[in-house]
Amino acid sequence: MTSPTDTTFDLKTYLRDRQQRVEAALDASIQEGYPEKIYQAMRYSLLAGGKRLRPILCLATCELLGGTESMAMPTACALEMIHTMSLIHDDLPAMDNDDYRRGQLTNHKVYGEDVAILAGDALLTYAFEFVATQTRNVSADRTLRVIADLGRAVGAEGLVGGQIVDLASEGVADVSLETLNYIHTHKTGALLRVSVTSGAVLAGADDAQVATLAQYADRIGLAFQIVDDVLDITATSEELGKSAGKDLAAQKATYPSIWGLEASKQQAQQLVEAAKASVLESFGSGAQPLVALADFIVDRTH
Amino acid sequence: MTSPTDTTFDLKTYLRDRQQRVEAALDASIQEGYPEKIYQAMRYSLLAGGKRLRPILCLATCELLGGTESMAMPTACALEMIHTMSLIHDDLPAMDNDDYRRGQLTNHKVYGEDVAILAGDALLTYAFEFVATQTRNVSADRTLRVIADLGRAVGAEGLVGGQIVDLASEGVADVSLETLNYIHTHKTGALLRVSVTSGAVLAGADDAQVATLAQYADRIGLAFQIVDDVLDITATSEELGKSAGKDLAAQKATYPSIWGLEASKQQAQQLVEAAKASVLESFGSGAQPLVALADFIVDRTH
Repeated sequence: MTSPTDTTFDLKTYLRDRQQRVEAALDASIQEGYPEKIYQAMRYSLLAGGKRLRPILCLATCELLGGTESMAMPTACALEMIHTMSLIHDDLPAMDNDDYRRGQLTNHKVYGEDVAILAGDALLTYAFEFVATQTRNVSADRTLRVIADLGRAVGAEGLVGGQIVDLASEGVADVSLETLNYIHTHKTGALLRVSVTSGAVLAGADDAQVATLAQYADRIGLAFQIVDDVLDITATSEELGKSAGKDLAAQKATYPSIWGLEASKQQAQQLVEAAKASVLESFGSGAQPLVALADFIVDRTH
Repeated sequence: MTSPTDTTFDLKTYLRDRQQRVEAALDASIQEGYPEKIYQAMRYSLLAGGKRLRPILCLATCELLGGTESMAMPTACALEMIHTMSLIHDDLPAMDNDDYRRGQLTNHKVYGEDVAILAGDALLTYAFEFVATQTRNVSADRTLRVIADLGRAVGAEGLVGGQIVDLASEGVADVSLETLNYIHTHKTGALLRVSVTSGAVLAGADDAQVATLAQYADRIGLAFQIVDDVLDITATSEELGKSAGKDLAAQKATYPSIWGLEASKQQAQQLVEAAKASVLESFGSGAQPLVALADFIVDRTH
């Protein structure tokens, strides 16, 4: 065990290692078969890179609670399948109408809208199937709980609900902070929360541990979104791998538009400090990966 | 127990009773909440009527194997949520571009394409969540198996795979019988099969029983599709609640286009007879509901 102030924890190496393991697991999760086009479309977006933050959070909390990679990797992959589905459907012409994502053409620009809709449906379906069939060394009860938690995070009570309010707020002049918070705690926050809590549930965490980790997740989730809004203003499209300045162009309500740029940065930093303090207090130095991941969220450039 | 030749089994009463129970369960499954629009869009299509054939098949096999309604009703509802999702997404302009379904405007015509895509996503997600959280008196292992089976039936190996090949076959002059079979065993057959087998799995059926029921399901599934193709030619739009004559207009390959109308009707009848014989042989007079449901499939007018 290293002490909380130990500076030897090397986040770069940790992230690179976990990303590689997640990439390998994702690559193995979907084999090409007939009909080729659907598997190609699913793999095109699933294997298009990205930070793999959700799977890594899941693996990190499972490990923190004494679990193993084989317990958490199927759920880690499912989280990325769900996240990818949401990006594919978000990018559709009927939704955000984006041509680029993660630095490459969006799914529907390559495969057509019909296939993109179906590729999203198939990834969403496969996420649940994958957890149900691939999870090892976890009781069926706990696996069912993870499936239920994933469902709540994605459906009308979670990601989809956030999307609906986001769409309804487009072009509205005076979106309230309350509405903006609703959008983000649901659209991005819910999936980040279950990324963190599912790893803990799979490892057999008790309710108090899950609650502490949920609070950590909510704080970094909100910080993540504030940083996203800030980067939309300060970063280039090349850095983001998607169009920059979209929020301004769409006159979208963002944290910087309500608080200003500097206050937004400060708010994100405060949330991350609070998130770090809570997990260090509860779990000690074993929480180093979660601490480093929180820092990574505010320090990132894309 | 009634004998196989007992004529007192009243399918009309049986269907009406089960439809009412399923409607009530579906109505209770989704409460309106914030954001209202997503719940309204989900309920609009889920509660738009329909035969409820998939839920009823699930309830019937569960009961045949000695199970109770509380074991099967959540899965029965999930099957209808999945079926409804597939209809909402199928009807989108990027897919079949239909304005009417079950005699009313399609989801995207009422709520817009963006909401319709999200309502489908939310229904698909909720199907898995609902089975995971609502199933009673069934071991977690068996519930997990049902979730896995549902996933396979809906994803790239099932319904979505069938859709992809169907889309790729549009406007193709000489679609083979093999391709047509692939489309239908996946696009409609896979979900009908899991409707039948999931009820059995929930009730604790053994592998041989599940295999017999899967064969029954495959036969009525194919008959169902042949009848669908026939009705597209012989029925009116009013009877169907959707546009009639669409296959001909789209020059789509159908069983009547390959076999002719009369031979198609005969083939459907033969499949149904074989399906009935197999379940009567294995389960005796307890299979009366499945026998009557098989007859219902060829005799229906919409």
